[in-house]
Amino acid sequence: MTVFRGHVLQSRITDTDNGFIMSKLTHIDKHGKARMVDVTAKEITTREAVAKGSVFMQSATLKALLANEIKKGDVLGVARIAGIMAAKKTCNIIPLCHPLNITSVDIFFEPQIKKRCIDITASVKVSSQTGVEMEALTAVFAAALTIYDMCKAIDKEMTISHIRLVKKTGGKSGTYVRTEAG
Amino acid sequence: MTVFRGHVLQSRITDTDNGFIMSKLTHIDKHGKARMVDVTAKEITTREAVAKGSVFMQSATLKALLANEIKKGDVLGVARIAGIMAAKKTCNIIPLCHPLNITSVDIFFEPQIKKRCIDITASVKVSSQTGVEMEALTAVFAAALTIYDMCKAIDKEMTISHIRLVKKTGGKSGTYVRTEAG
Amino acid sequence: MTVFRGHVLQSRITDTDNGFIMSKLTHIDKHGKARMVDVTAKEITTREAVAKGSVFMQSATLKALLANEIKKGDVLGVARIAGIMAAKKTCNIIPLCHPLNITSVDIFFEPQIKKRCIDITASVKVSSQTGVEMEALTAVFAAALTIYDMCKAIDKEMTISHIRLVKKTGGKSGTYVRTEAG
Amino acid sequence: MTVFRGHVLQSRITDTDNGFIMSKLTHIDKHGKARMVDVTAKEITTREAVAKGSVFMQSATLKALLANEIKKGDVLGVARIAGIMAAKKTCNIIPLCHPLNITSVDIFFEPQIKKRCIDITASVKVSSQTGVEMEALTAVFAAALTIYDMCKAIDKEMTISHIRLVKKTGGKSGTYVRTEAG
Amino acid sequence: MTVFRGHVLQSRITDTDNGFIMSKLTHIDKHGKARMVDVTAKEITTREAVAKGSVFMQSATLKALLANEIKKGDVLGVARIAGIMAAKKTCNIIPLCHPLNITSVDIFFEPQIKKRCIDITASVKVSSQTGVEMEALTAVFAAALTIYDMCKAIDKEMTISHIRLVKKTGGKSGTYVRTEAG
Amino acid sequence: MTVFRGHVLQSRITDTDNGFIMSKLTHIDKHGKARMVDVTAKEITTREAVAKGSVFMQSATLKALLANEIKKGDVLGVARIAGIMAAKKTCNIIPLCHPLNITSVDIFFEPQIKKRCIDITASVKVSSQTGVEMEALTAVFAAALTIYDMCKAIDKEMTISHIRLVKKTGGKSGTYVRTEAG
Repeated sequence: MTVFRGHVLQSRITDTDNGFIMSKLTHIDKHGKARMVDVTAKEITTREAVAKGSVFMQSATLKALLANEIKKGDVLGVARIAGIMAAKKTCNIIPLCHPLNITSVDIFFEPQIKKRCIDITASVKVSSQTGVEMEALTAVFAAALTIYDMCKAIDKEMTISHIRLVKKTGGKSGTYVRTEAG
Repeated sequence: MTVFRGHVLQSRITDTDNGFIMSKLTHIDKHGKARMVDVTAKEITTREAVAKGSVFMQSATLKALLANEIKKGDVLGVARIAGIMAAKKTCNIIPLCHPLNITSVDIFFEPQIKKRCIDITASVKVSSQTGVEMEALTAVFAAALTIYDMCKAIDKEMTISHIRLVKKTGGKSGTYVRTEAG
Repeated sequence: MTVFRGHVLQSRITDTDNGFIMSKLTHIDKHGKARMVDVTAKEITTREAVAKGSVFMQSATLKALLANEIKKGDVLGVARIAGIMAAKKTCNIIPLCHPLNITSVDIFFEPQIKKRCIDITASVKVSSQTGVEMEALTAVFAAALTIYDMCKAIDKEMTISHIRLVKKTGGKSGTYVRTEAG
Repeated sequence: MTVFRGHVLQSRITDTDNGFIMSKLTHIDKHGKARMVDVTAKEITTREAVAKGSVFMQSATLKALLANEIKKGDVLGVARIAGIMAAKKTCNIIPLCHPLNITSVDIFFEPQIKKRCIDITASVKVSSQTGVEMEALTAVFAAALTIYDMCKAIDKEMTISHIRLVKKTGGKSGTYVRTEAG
Repeated sequence: MTVFRGHVLQSRITDTDNGFIMSKLTHIDKHGKARMVDVTAKEITTREAVAKGSVFMQSATLKALLANEIKKGDVLGVARIAGIMAAKKTCNIIPLCHPLNITSVDIFFEPQIKKRCIDITASVKVSSQTGVEMEALTAVFAAALTIYDMCKAIDKEMTISHIRLVKKTGGKSGTYVRTEAG
Repeated sequence: MTVFRGHVLQSRITDTDNGFIMSKLTHIDKHGKARMVDVTAKEITTREAVAKGSVFMQSATLKALLANEIKKGDVLGVARIAGIMAAKKTCNIIPLCHPLNITSVDIFFEPQIKKRCIDITASVKVSSQTGVEMEALTAVFAAALTIYDMCKAIDKEMTISHIRLVKKTGGKSGTYVRTEAG
């Protein structure tokens, strides 16, 4: 009979009186333990990642935003800075991300008047042993939340959706481009 | 004829030789300038905000995640910590947010096997002059991105969607509950 | 027979096809889920915490430190600043700590020449719904690590020990004073 | 004869064989030790601080900045966000500052075409036991450095000057207004 | 007639019903959009930057500071640490700065008794694709503000001035030395 | 007779009327001034550091922790994340540490039931001009404090001890292995 003793699965048990449990939980232990993946031996290459996402809102909100009539200020200008600064803090927000000296961040906004949303695109580059997917996604997330923050006084129903990686280049796995529906 | 001179709209012009432009741009200036809203005189009340969002993935990814077979470790356990810690950093991620001493953060995960997603709910409380909507949304987002980060080796097509405020209590505007479709 | 299915224990399962597992794991779920304890309803009182710890080193290292002959600079002066600044960052280092506006930090060093160590004492105050034990301990730790960092070029065998809470006042549980051996 | 033994002046000596030195250095010790001033017992009042400063530059740089023709983007818009965000981080930049939940930050820019500078004004508010002078000064400084950063490709000779506190209200010491030359 | 529609100038408009505006604002868009300059392809070279600045104060304040009689502690010792630590945080204070692993920071203080000021010099080094001017300037700024903070109880009229880059080596543009008046 | 004039020892005096003091304090100045050691010219090599430490507690606390019955949640799982995230923030906690892009962090826990403690081991890697001893020690410290924080409601007498560097490889000084008593 397997006796589950809570946390034990996430630690090594060395005292002999726990040897019984340890042997049973080896498999679980191997996967249950969080770790920052070791990229020490990986090659330094130029890498880029592009992420996208959308902030949906009421037509009136989008109109006010585009006319720069939101009381908190120039929404997309502030959102862009939020995205750039968040990209630099990614490894402090996502626990297992590696610290990286990113060399470029670019953020675009495309208002989609018929779909009543702002599309956000973030592109991040680095020369490193690991990629910048999380940095690009974090930039989109901070820009989207900033748009939400600045417009929430007039529209609480805004929704942030479709945050996704659309492209990734560099590294051993090569180029990835997400297939997007027309 | 209106002559647009770039940035001028976002600053006060005091030299007399720019008086002409200044008078024209007063309206734009009023809205174009970002600011942290002054909440000094608002009443301190107990406030709560609840936000939700979902991470969609392939069935195999969801299965591996629930079986704790993701190489980077215990996905939801790490994502929960990421959400809690990010809630505390909200004012450093969202430029115009006020710093707040939040008094509670709670994060729930609900795997939706048929919909192939993990639903994330974050609930944040504070006693303050302003609300914690952005803290709850930031917690959801950091948890979602952490799930993405830990599973991206086996599934690059994951999508984070439907990030939204579902409830807000306290403050002058009272209780808000989002109407959600069945 | 108990079937352990990895991470499942730390999330809520809502799909009906997992109802079986959910009912079994309720107890574990209740304890396995990390959360920031809700202190919203607790009373704001003046609280203080005092923590202590020691950095043991070779006699020659201690002598060089006290003679201010360590190449990296004035060791205890820098360690004191490290401790004060770390106390302010406690909630970003310890995942479940509440953000607090501490109102005082004081750090003392007592070289113990016979015991070959520097004793560190940190005292932190706040008016808050929760205590500052972790802030005082974090201050001691950052000061200790800074001493280590500044002396490590001449002494790799230094050891940081006996980090402990020695006193705590304020709050519902009242005053706690650790019984220390003479 | 006074024997100076470096750092000793900044620590308490408790071993008896150092009693001689300790007695001599009491006075120095009292002042040499950095500490965060204890404000626990001070009254919570509404406080405001206003700081000012200027970034001097070449006429051509100022012209390009006002015409929004700087390659890095909308200079004053970005500088304003930098100032607001830095005000929130003051206690992590200035070692002995208290953490505070500031309730308002407002930043104004006044281009002075004849003097060839941008004047920066930052106004910060809080309800707290201590004032926000350092927050206002930090906001001015971060905004000034951001202007420098964004224009440095075309003008390395820029100078940031006259950073000063111009007004302070609230607290036991009451209102302070700096006397400024006409 | 040019119709200015606020923020539109800082985003890309893709819906066809806005095509008219988009074509007009291309030029403005190009410059109005903030971005972190792409340095991915630049060569890694050893770079150094030296910045200077001064804190002016009353004679009595300077005397107290030099006699180490300021209540908050050893002013220049704390200011030096503030400057070193701020240099490491530059990319989190200045929005468009690249994260860099700086390899050296050195800060000097030169009291100028006749001019009644403390001159601050910060020197920063790195091996990188971009320079460290902003890191050196940020170090000076944090050191200057720390001096202000520690002395403000006895002198509210202090002024921080002449913050400037004095030297820069490395990179494609080569060595720059500011011409300073005798 | 040596006249000690407080802080003067930590700054350069340039005014001629202080020349007398300056000459006397050269030696002290050389050592009293904190600085980040210049590693610009050092070779980039792969480096690793391993640190250890222990959290001592009551038997009942250790039992509750291993049975995952601590109210705040899965103690070791949270402590591991705390350690990993703190390793990435080392240069912001330890004033004179260099910022580094660490490439791996691994944290192990070994409950020692007879000794009534949890042994913590942290291993950190980097390719850099300087080592990661402080990163490994900081990871141990944050993990230990998190265990303390999560268990302190049931055991205030916990003690963190024996924090030490056990191994270091890479760099000019080569491999160091601490001699540990059996």
